[in-house]
Amino acid sequence: METARRVFRSYGFAPIDTPALELTEILLAKVDDGAEITKQLYRFKDAGDRDVALRFDLTVPLARFVSQHFSTLGMPFKRYHLGSVWRGESPQAGRYREFMQCDFDFIGTLANAADIEIALVIHDLMAALGFERFTIRVNNRLVLNGLLDSLGLNAQGPSLLRSLDKLAKIGRENVRDEMIREAGVTAEQALGVIALAETTGSNDAILAQLAERFAGNAAALKGVANLGEMTRVLRQAGVPEERFQVDLAICRGLDYYTGTVYETFLNDLSTIGSVCSGGRYDNLTGRYTKQALPGVGASLGLDRLLAAMEELKLLPKTSTPAPVLVAQFSAERLGDYQRVARMVRAAGIGCEVYPEAKKLGAQFQYAERRGFRAALIAGPDEFLASQWKIKDLALRTEIVSTEPKVVENLQTILNAEILNAEIRNTNVEIRNNESK
Amino acid sequence: METARRVFRSYGFAPIDTPALELTEILLAKVDDGAEITKQLYRFKDAGDRDVALRFDLTVPLARFVSQHFSTLGMPFKRYHLGSVWRGESPQAGRYREFMQCDFDFIGTLANAADIEIALVIHDLMAALGFERFTIRVNNRLVLNGLLDSLGLNAQGPSLLRSLDKLAKIGRENVRDEMIREAGVTAEQALGVIALAETTGSNDAILAQLAERFAGNAAALKGVANLGEMTRVLRQAGVPEERFQVDLAICRGLDYYTGTVYETFLNDLSTIGSVCSGGRYDNLTGRYTKQALPGVGASLGLDRLLAAMEELKLLPKTSTPAPVLVAQFSAERLGDYQRVARMVRAAGIGCEVYPEAKKLGAQFQYAERRGFRAALIAGPDEFLASQWKIKDLALRTEIVSTEPKVVENLQTILNAEILNAEIRNTNVEIRNNESK
Repeated sequence: METARRVFRSYGFAPIDTPALELTEILLAKVDDGAEITKQLYRFKDAGDRDVALRFDLTVPLARFVSQHFSTLGMPFKRYHLGSVWRGESPQAGRYREFMQCDFDFIGTLANAADIEIALVIHDLMAALGFERFTIRVNNRLVLNGLLDSLGLNAQGPSLLRSLDKLAKIGRENVRDEMIREAGVTAEQALGVIALAETTGSNDAILAQLAERFAGNAAALKGVANLGEMTRVLRQAGVPEERFQVDLAICRGLDYYTGTVYETFLNDLSTIGSVCSGGRYDNLTGRYTKQALPGVGASLGLDRLLAAMEELKLLPKTSTPAPVLVAQFSAERLGDYQRVARMVRAAGIGCEVYPEAKKLGAQFQYAERRGFRAALIAGPDEFLASQWKIKDLALRTEIVSTEPKVVENLQTILNAEILNAEIRNTNVEIRNNESK
Repeated sequence: METARRVFRSYGFAPIDTPALELTEILLAKVDDGAEITKQLYRFKDAGDRDVALRFDLTVPLARFVSQHFSTLGMPFKRYHLGSVWRGESPQAGRYREFMQCDFDFIGTLANAADIEIALVIHDLMAALGFERFTIRVNNRLVLNGLLDSLGLNAQGPSLLRSLDKLAKIGRENVRDEMIREAGVTAEQALGVIALAETTGSNDAILAQLAERFAGNAAALKGVANLGEMTRVLRQAGVPEERFQVDLAICRGLDYYTGTVYETFLNDLSTIGSVCSGGRYDNLTGRYTKQALPGVGASLGLDRLLAAMEELKLLPKTSTPAPVLVAQFSAERLGDYQRVARMVRAAGIGCEVYPEAKKLGAQFQYAERRGFRAALIAGPDEFLASQWKIKDLALRTEIVSTEPKVVENLQTILNAEILNAEIRNTNVEIRNNESK
């Protein structure tokens, strides 16, 4: 979450938070009475006898928030929101009734530049979390709609796309059968839709093929052009080509989306599904105001990502956010320990002082379990000489430093860790190259 | 909240989060049936017919969390928690039914070093938020108990301290009358308690006076010694003396506290009350396990602080977390705009690309409203010369930079802002010195 916040901020996305409790009529505006979500709602009467419920996603509160504060927000408006949502589902592995969502949206512009930025944010999020091998798969609903149009299947569109969305999961035969059954199309028509989704090739090859196929279909060509611009801009902005793939099978089940759609897969853990998905929509605020407000955004699947990071061993073993521990050698020197700790903190390095003058062995045991990177130690000898011992807890080495040099020496140790990580990455690259 | 997280992390406090919904029996364990909070609870039956409620503070969930995960957490354990709590109070100015709490606690040690660290965290939090003139007022319940003991008023202690807690608000006469009425003490006894609370002087003077007064009273002297050690360590660690005051009137109303108690006041806005309060407690987990777990912690009053920062004009006028805007001069150069933006972000500087190739005037209007600090602009001339115009939006100056120098030039502009802030602070110090 800290990493995600940092990436969002670096792109100028502002954090918002809204109350967990909303009036039920707000949450269920425009939701069908029979919809699954109405049964999953945590709903009750508050002390003032108002019908309230806990939010079930962050999109409805965003729509309410933007409708209410439209005049003061100013457009375009970029926000991220990390917050809990509640759904009374039957619990199953990896599913919770209260879980954290992480949404980011670029609202108030139709420009494809916003769609491109969402792809860039997804890329930088994944990279910042430590993932190396992932693929952002992107499509555009305008292309899919152009296809349906050319096959005369506009009316059956929503049903067909809901089925197509299951292609990776249930396979082409099952999708075909479902399309015949649910949308009432012929086997030939179903296979026509599936065939386009199965187009493979480099981004440029797919785009060239689409441009040819949809010549004269203005709406579809707009979609192709937007995908083309996204491909070029990501390339120029330095996103490795293998991390971005135009994929005509990506359609997202929801009727909601009208343009770009995104899914993000981990190459080494494809079974867990998309870890970051979203798309462009025409009208965020339609349920509350007459003003149509377009936007584009995505949602980071925190629970899935955490599971994946655990599986891929990307989670740091440390359980302290501070890398440096000042050991407490003698209780009467606490003022000196806190003084040097504040000096270290002022240089931007987290630093903790052990609270008791226990045996050093016990303090180092604590340091090891918590995953500290370095320890500062001073006893009578060091105080006499105005020196500090600095222990590198990973390499199990020790140096002696004058007090004014403590920060510099700690920085060297902490940077060395980054250097080691770089060396590791280089090795991975070498291996990857060798296996090609 | 970002600033608070940064300070907590710098001291090695780990973030935790717990579900907003808990079983009602967990939340109300050891709460009296008639207690106000039972009426304020947002309580209902969930889909599984379990009696659940939204948490009303972050302390009870912490106690439940630590009891449940004691064996894996390891002690000492330092955590912070930023989260919403719910209380069905009648709404009034500055009071919400759903509001954010910010707690930090140092658990599992009796060492006074932990109490001292909490005071240091409070200091660094307030300073990092931009406050210059504030006072952390600290007392120790052991001293107050020593006083009550010496007056033979142990049994009436809780009632007397609840009244004493109102001294600043309702004045000595009203406190005296309440003590006589509620605790059944004589006017003389009441005034004896109030007199100690009214002791003023430098920290060293108060401590010397206490040491003399409580000679032979071991418990009270322990409290005096702890306050003395805190005074000395804060001084050595570099906390300005005027920001820390031993204050015998601070007692906190709750029975819960057993040692150090803290309140924090803004010198220029004393009427809003304490913005950060807390204390030491003997037994966090008593309601759930037999194991007694001591700790010390405090709570930052976010709503009050925000109101104060608004009043004292400490809130930045910017509404973008990114200081740099790349203007979009021509749409076909989007790849170059995002490329340079990623370069700036990689250097740790937040950077946003305007999504549409609107007239520059409109883009600068957006930049001004959002409070960007600098803008990067490149049109045909600049691309031909591989240059970027950098506009300082605060000083309204402009320079031309080669691309490799863009980050360095932006850093100069952003650091200049820091320099200006330092100049402002210096002026404030000069004024403060002059008014002495």
